[in-house]
Amino acid sequence: MRGAVIHAPGDVRFETVDDPKIIYPTDAVIRMAVTCVCGSDLWPYRGAEPVGDPHPMGHEYVGFVEEVGSAVTAVRPGQFVVGSFATSDNTCANCANGFQSNCLHREFMSTCQAEYVRIPNAQGTLVATKDVPDESLWPGLLAVSDVMGTGWWAADAAEVKPGSTAVVVGDGAVGLCAVIAAKELGAERIIAMSRHASRQELARAFGATDIVAERGEEGVERIKELTGGIGADSVLECVGTGESMLQALHSARPGGNVGFVGVPHDVAVDGQELFFSHVGLRGGPAPVRHYLPDLIERVLTRRIDPGQVFDLTLSLDQVAEGYKAMDERRAIKTLLQP
Amino acid sequence: MRGAVIHAPGDVRFETVDDPKIIYPTDAVIRMAVTCVCGSDLWPYRGAEPVGDPHPMGHEYVGFVEEVGSAVTAVRPGQFVVGSFATSDNTCANCANGFQSNCLHREFMSTCQAEYVRIPNAQGTLVATKDVPDESLWPGLLAVSDVMGTGWWAADAAEVKPGSTAVVVGDGAVGLCAVIAAKELGAERIIAMSRHASRQELARAFGATDIVAERGEEGVERIKELTGGIGADSVLECVGTGESMLQALHSARPGGNVGFVGVPHDVAVDGQELFFSHVGLRGGPAPVRHYLPDLIERVLTRRIDPGQVFDLTLSLDQVAEGYKAMDERRAIKTLLQP
Repeated sequence: MRGAVIHAPGDVRFETVDDPKIIYPTDAVIRMAVTCVCGSDLWPYRGAEPVGDPHPMGHEYVGFVEEVGSAVTAVRPGQFVVGSFATSDNTCANCANGFQSNCLHREFMSTCQAEYVRIPNAQGTLVATKDVPDESLWPGLLAVSDVMGTGWWAADAAEVKPGSTAVVVGDGAVGLCAVIAAKELGAERIIAMSRHASRQELARAFGATDIVAERGEEGVERIKELTGGIGADSVLECVGTGESMLQALHSARPGGNVGFVGVPHDVAVDGQELFFSHVGLRGGPAPVRHYLPDLIERVLTRRIDPGQVFDLTLSLDQVAEGYKAMDERRAIKTLLQP
Repeated sequence: MRGAVIHAPGDVRFETVDDPKIIYPTDAVIRMAVTCVCGSDLWPYRGAEPVGDPHPMGHEYVGFVEEVGSAVTAVRPGQFVVGSFATSDNTCANCANGFQSNCLHREFMSTCQAEYVRIPNAQGTLVATKDVPDESLWPGLLAVSDVMGTGWWAADAAEVKPGSTAVVVGDGAVGLCAVIAAKELGAERIIAMSRHASRQELARAFGATDIVAERGEEGVERIKELTGGIGADSVLECVGTGESMLQALHSARPGGNVGFVGVPHDVAVDGQELFFSHVGLRGGPAPVRHYLPDLIERVLTRRIDPGQVFDLTLSLDQVAEGYKAMDERRAIKTLLQP
């Protein structure tokens, strides 16, 4: 089959790779319905993370079950399934605690920008829809497998409550999905921090009530002005840099909460500063599996439409251009059709 | 009047100081019933924090109202009152959110090892008991003004829930009170990390079900062995060093919570490590005022007896010996009687 392989920063190629096969009885193989490029794929693409040897890319997927291992009974060939970028058995102690992305048998997906993909822990990872959903819903369901699940987790980790004020730091696909989540969880005021007109517009469409274009301490000052001088109840940090983390921590009110879902790069939190802020901090890879049934339902009933974060659709063989467009910020997120 | 003044590391003197007076209409002056020495007083005493110019010490107090400012109606002269080391108006936005120790008008107490003390924000800070409590209850009520309130906050910040497993890092007075709090909040298993026989004994008396004497990563391994390999639901960090913070973070299960109440000294939390742990982290100066009515009631009804943390009682003029005994770990906590 064919799939994306990164060879070096800036060098993603669509080429012949091994066909995925059932290796363990708990595996499934799915045929990709749609896949996409993630903001986190840009870290190695931009050389901000080492690439190492050439390797496949991609961790977001929805598709049709092609084959299942002997231990997989939850899904069967032909079904349309949604999963998570982190696979989980959904039975271990961490899964039982709602942290499936810390499953004791977790494997991170990494070969999804391809025609087929092997899903480890398929029994606990995949959720089948009752019927094959209308194609117009595929982008939304694909978003659920990562960015929408991650945005939801940001809101959950930041303890967004009905009537509260939420700030979203980051206007990438995850940040925009975090706006959806904050709204669904009842935030009354949702302040999106964004400098880009098209993203501001989408944030507003998703439920943002205010936009703050300033960044850093200037942005924090604007947040304070909008929140009675004390800061927001919940801040959803969806970037992962030291700067964005400080912006998030300083935007939260004393005793507020920061949920951080951008993989931190060179971030150290000063203990004494965190102490005197009283701010609660929780982050991590989103336990997407925990939210899957609920989020799939919200998409299928068209209550939410996170598929709107895909503003560029390409065929899978154009994957290199998909990376380039996101790297140059010409696209928020690229959908890839096999 | 006479009170304690620190002149340099290791040099605390009991000497004549200015009589406290009402300065603002929101002030009260109280006559000390009992006061004490705090573990945090040892930071400057040990030279781990700069002493600067000679200055009074002490932030824990219970006493009798001597005089109130014109704006104070909540308490009246003659009443027995309990307060907090952090004063608060109890009406600002942060107070309303339950974070009175981040009150917009907060002043930290710092002159309590004395015969009298001025209490700023007296209206919002002081809670009077109905009658003058029996003297045997004064140590417990004094503990409530700081260490018991702080131990409770550690358990609250670490989200101790009925049936859960809690680990307490630190066997000082706060750590021991944190054991009381974890028990009161329903933790089924309470693991106290302590190397000192007398403190282990008190921890057990307060409700600890297990003792772990090992420290650092060895201690973490023991915690893992006791918690099905994954770590504890809640960890109460009651020390404030980089080492104790790591011990706490590593002892929590994925998705667990660390409440940290020891003022952090040279603590930096690695963002990526916190991220992949899924652990929630919240700390700060305890919002004692938030808990006061409840904790006073628990002490007055003798449901809890945090006064047991005082294992050395001296007269106030022996304050220097009180510091020395704690510095040399001959005493957990020194009670001072004017």
